[in-house]
Amino acid sequence: MKYHKIPEETIRRMPMYLRALSLLERQGQQTISSGQLAQQLHLKSPQIRKDLSYFGAFGTRGIGYPVNETARQIRAILRLDTPQKAALVGAGRLGTAIASYPGFSLLGLDIAAIFDNAPNKIGKRLGQLIIEDTRAVQSLKERNIRLAILATPSEAAQPCAEALVKAGVKGILNLSPCTLNVPRKVKVVSIDIAMELGILPYYL
Amino acid sequence: MKYHKIPEETIRRMPMYLRALSLLERQGQQTISSGQLAQQLHLKSPQIRKDLSYFGAFGTRGIGYPVNETARQIRAILRLDTPQKAALVGAGRLGTAIASYPGFSLLGLDIAAIFDNAPNKIGKRLGQLIIEDTRAVQSLKERNIRLAILATPSEAAQPCAEALVKAGVKGILNLSPCTLNVPRKVKVVSIDIAMELGILPYYL
Repeated sequence: MKYHKIPEETIRRMPMYLRALSLLERQGQQTISSGQLAQQLHLKSPQIRKDLSYFGAFGTRGIGYPVNETARQIRAILRLDTPQKAALVGAGRLGTAIASYPGFSLLGLDIAAIFDNAPNKIGKRLGQLIIEDTRAVQSLKERNIRLAILATPSEAAQPCAEALVKAGVKGILNLSPCTLNVPRKVKVVSIDIAMELGILPYYL
Repeated sequence: MKYHKIPEETIRRMPMYLRALSLLERQGQQTISSGQLAQQLHLKSPQIRKDLSYFGAFGTRGIGYPVNETARQIRAILRLDTPQKAALVGAGRLGTAIASYPGFSLLGLDIAAIFDNAPNKIGKRLGQLIIEDTRAVQSLKERNIRLAILATPSEAAQPCAEALVKAGVKGILNLSPCTLNVPRKVKVVSIDIAMELGILPYYL
């Protein structure tokens, strides 16, 4: 199977399929049809069938897709079959909200380190973790953490991103309202809440 | 000018252009080339030229785009030329982070109401606002607030969305980790932080 031929748009939808399938697994459901998935996810069923076919999952007419096996395949492709550790940089309001966000564990994602540069935050507990000095980001390499969530103010985002890249981080989820300049080999996904809200008035 | 012919992908990039141009306006810069914009936003300049041409903005070779006029046009298309009020539903950790998020004002967006259903939160101050009972969402119609940000736990998201739609809300930014079932005429943009983080390991 040639994983690298999967279109980016399909990859973007895969965690959504995985969440739906993981919930069905928990409920003990054996199979699901593309039509039922389409209804749950507000997608069209031909799109779901096409997406799932990219990684070799084929439903049986009248029965649907096997829930466990399809979830297992998606986990393997997304490399979520082993727990993935991520570092969080920025323990402000947004960082604190993310640290306690319940949605990560279902996907096998685990926030394993939190950093901030404020002296009054360093050493404090946040959930199960102790907030570390941002200067200790370099330790991520030896801790084998290659994913990071950036939730700092804009002005700190670029230097923090550079420190993360230097520490061997290969994927950054950027929640700071700015664009990051990082080497091509580092994948950045940016979420900018104001930008997303900003498109809504167009549709009013 | 036929606004409705602008592709959705272009619309999605417009707030990003607007933020960049708004910052340049503040700095007093008169013109910017597509190349400079491309560098700032990590996009390709032909794409920027194409996007900007959709709404009648044409740069002058060797000079670039007029900053004020281009920003003015984008604001008009996105309906951000008059301040847009939004309601926030959910004053938990994520809602609190959003209420204090500094990125909205640059786009002319204003969080004008905050709702929660927890008795210990209702009546408390959050920034400039007093947290209102979620049951008061119906007042949004007469307050002329037609945008909402949903930052509730999953199980509350669908009933809250229904209450918002009933109150005349036409655009919802959904931050709850679930899909919403709303009438077609209501535009929903969903941000799911775990889903976005979930695609990164694929690129490791």
